[in-house]
Amino acid sequence: MSAQTWVENVTADSAFGVHNLPYGVFSAPDRPDERRIGVAIGEYVLDVGAAARAAGAPSMLLDARSLNPLMARGRAAWSATRAAISSWLVDPAHRPAVEPHLTPVSEVSLHLPFDPADYVDFYSSEHHAKNLGSMFRPDAEALTPNWKHLPIGYHGRSGSLIVSGTEVVRPTGQRKAPHDAAPTFGPCRRLDFEAEVGFVVGTSSRLGEPVALADFAEHVFGVCLVNDWSARDIQAWEYVPLGPFLGKSFATSVSPWIVPLDALAHARVRPPTRDVEPLPYLDDRDTEPWGLDLALEVQVNGQVMSRPPFAGMYWTAAQQLAHLTSNGGRLRTGDLFASGTVSGPERDTVGSLIEYSWNGEQPFKLADGGERAFLEDGDVVTIGATAPGPGGARVGFGEVSGRVVAART
Amino acid sequence: MSAQTWVENVTADSAFGVHNLPYGVFSAPDRPDERRIGVAIGEYVLDVGAAARAAGAPSMLLDARSLNPLMARGRAAWSATRAAISSWLVDPAHRPAVEPHLTPVSEVSLHLPFDPADYVDFYSSEHHAKNLGSMFRPDAEALTPNWKHLPIGYHGRSGSLIVSGTEVVRPTGQRKAPHDAAPTFGPCRRLDFEAEVGFVVGTSSRLGEPVALADFAEHVFGVCLVNDWSARDIQAWEYVPLGPFLGKSFATSVSPWIVPLDALAHARVRPPTRDVEPLPYLDDRDTEPWGLDLALEVQVNGQVMSRPPFAGMYWTAAQQLAHLTSNGGRLRTGDLFASGTVSGPERDTVGSLIEYSWNGEQPFKLADGGERAFLEDGDVVTIGATAPGPGGARVGFGEVSGRVVAART
Repeated sequence: MSAQTWVENVTADSAFGVHNLPYGVFSAPDRPDERRIGVAIGEYVLDVGAAARAAGAPSMLLDARSLNPLMARGRAAWSATRAAISSWLVDPAHRPAVEPHLTPVSEVSLHLPFDPADYVDFYSSEHHAKNLGSMFRPDAEALTPNWKHLPIGYHGRSGSLIVSGTEVVRPTGQRKAPHDAAPTFGPCRRLDFEAEVGFVVGTSSRLGEPVALADFAEHVFGVCLVNDWSARDIQAWEYVPLGPFLGKSFATSVSPWIVPLDALAHARVRPPTRDVEPLPYLDDRDTEPWGLDLALEVQVNGQVMSRPPFAGMYWTAAQQLAHLTSNGGRLRTGDLFASGTVSGPERDTVGSLIEYSWNGEQPFKLADGGERAFLEDGDVVTIGATAPGPGGARVGFGEVSGRVVAART
Repeated sequence: MSAQTWVENVTADSAFGVHNLPYGVFSAPDRPDERRIGVAIGEYVLDVGAAARAAGAPSMLLDARSLNPLMARGRAAWSATRAAISSWLVDPAHRPAVEPHLTPVSEVSLHLPFDPADYVDFYSSEHHAKNLGSMFRPDAEALTPNWKHLPIGYHGRSGSLIVSGTEVVRPTGQRKAPHDAAPTFGPCRRLDFEAEVGFVVGTSSRLGEPVALADFAEHVFGVCLVNDWSARDIQAWEYVPLGPFLGKSFATSVSPWIVPLDALAHARVRPPTRDVEPLPYLDDRDTEPWGLDLALEVQVNGQVMSRPPFAGMYWTAAQQLAHLTSNGGRLRTGDLFASGTVSGPERDTVGSLIEYSWNGEQPFKLADGGERAFLEDGDVVTIGATAPGPGGARVGFGEVSGRVVAART
């Protein structure tokens, strides 16, 4: 898959080379209301439905407004489709038919690439869980007793999933600091982000039938970046006993490109050694585990704040999926589950501002002289990532970005 | 709406008279793969799409596989459609054209009547919250400090919503009693149910724009019954700090009939006096509030366990909706939010077995000599409800029922 393409300016080590081929959904500049499936190649997006027709290949799954029909078909279809698209971009014989269906990415509008079903957010970085635990529950152990036995997660609001670039309206809500006599209502005062990695489910499962650890790649279509925007003041007041609700459900941003699992073969790594022996349904020690060596980068207003390392996550996505379905809960095409905030052990590797600023005490200093304990209106948060690809190339995830705008009061 | 219909055996005080007209989705016995919108009248279901054509009325919104297209159209369309259906069933002139489209309910298959978007579960019975709080957190105050300031809720798994009559597979999962040295994995040992009332959202809202208390009836299409099956042992081990997850997400049963909000005009009551003054966005004291005098009945294996009174719920559905969107979270057509377990103050008015048996100590005694601290395989739980209608008639909700079957291990 490290083959060379005829597409201009794409080299074998391009982050969007033929070893990557992430899927998205776009509107061409001359047809803003029409949604088409596209694959990123270099600085271009290929209309793969049109390319399929031009190449004389079956195109039904690619002639759709979202990735869901393709995602529902399963791994054999995903691999065959990926191989076909690769061949169109590598074989010069296809160039005359395929090239007219390339458009510069800078000219298109990118949309949420799949129709979301359920959204689940995990909490699988030990560093993040310890940091947040010690801030939210200063009088208790930072890690709850269950943390190393199971990947803790909760359901989020799939209706609030938005594509990168969509403005994020500052949420309003109830907040009450410990020293306040009573709660008040108004715009969030402690707006934060969480840099996460998302896994998009392709094939469904039957209600009542758990999905085994080994079947991860049969169900998961691809990987994206997620910003789980968080209103820390709303969250702190509401979350006991039933967990985060409105502090998280106002907006969750998703990157426009879904990197196929097949493009991440070179990124697989062994996760950290677990301190506690996992129960059999979570035990990946005798398998090739699904740790992934993604390198994230978080920017606030264009300035790098941190570089969170995904390889250090305690629980892998395969364990998360096995846990998520261990009770017989049903998977549907379009389910999204996110890793939880990716935080490493050092301050410049954390995935949220509350961790970087340690609950607001040590703000992030901006080059313009400003500083941020939490986000202000107008701030732009951008999360990018790459992963190892074949022959020293990187696999690009692009980015998930969003600008905060004032609350509508 | 208390008019008499020409449909056989339907009297003015029938729970499924023309004052009710709940919507469902059914398959006729001769076309099991075709889904049609139906309205219940007496012991019959009317194919309202076919009836519309026969009556010479526009039928597009009623010729659908689910209620979503009709629900998306908004209150004016809902009222007009309801008035039209009522006229077909009241005016004898319509009888020759409409009557062929009635089928006995006993002969049809009933499906989930809407395509669910997000599912939220609240926790709005003070009695239930106090009961569960004292069992799950015996060393703390039964009600958390936020409880009387906001309707606590969390997102559930909409992919696990199932229609009444669908078998419920006993979930498996991790559980660890306080005295256990380590968690174990296996079939749930403390399987329970929760009798709830569900509210189905028709019209969507825009991300970032809260829905006011006064706009409840513009967004909510109708009301149904919900059984939020609960694995208490899984829940107790997993739920700190991010809330219920797998203990709730294996199955949530929904009644097949959605009672239109318009059918509940006679059921509106003032909710209990609140001990704490609500913040303005939740303050319903100067409005006609949305307390609803529904009388629930819970049966285990055909034997009445309790009769929970919905009128006593501390937070109303209108307050729940205002809170749910207070952060700018988006509503979509097909969102379902449920009340939380409906429990009154006495033992024979609680909506869950864990409350009735007081954490398993005082089992529910069955007429066959058996007793239930929690549910066993083969048990059938049925929740029904009625509400006051015009002129002494009742509005029937039908029932939500499910049989527990053994875990698939």
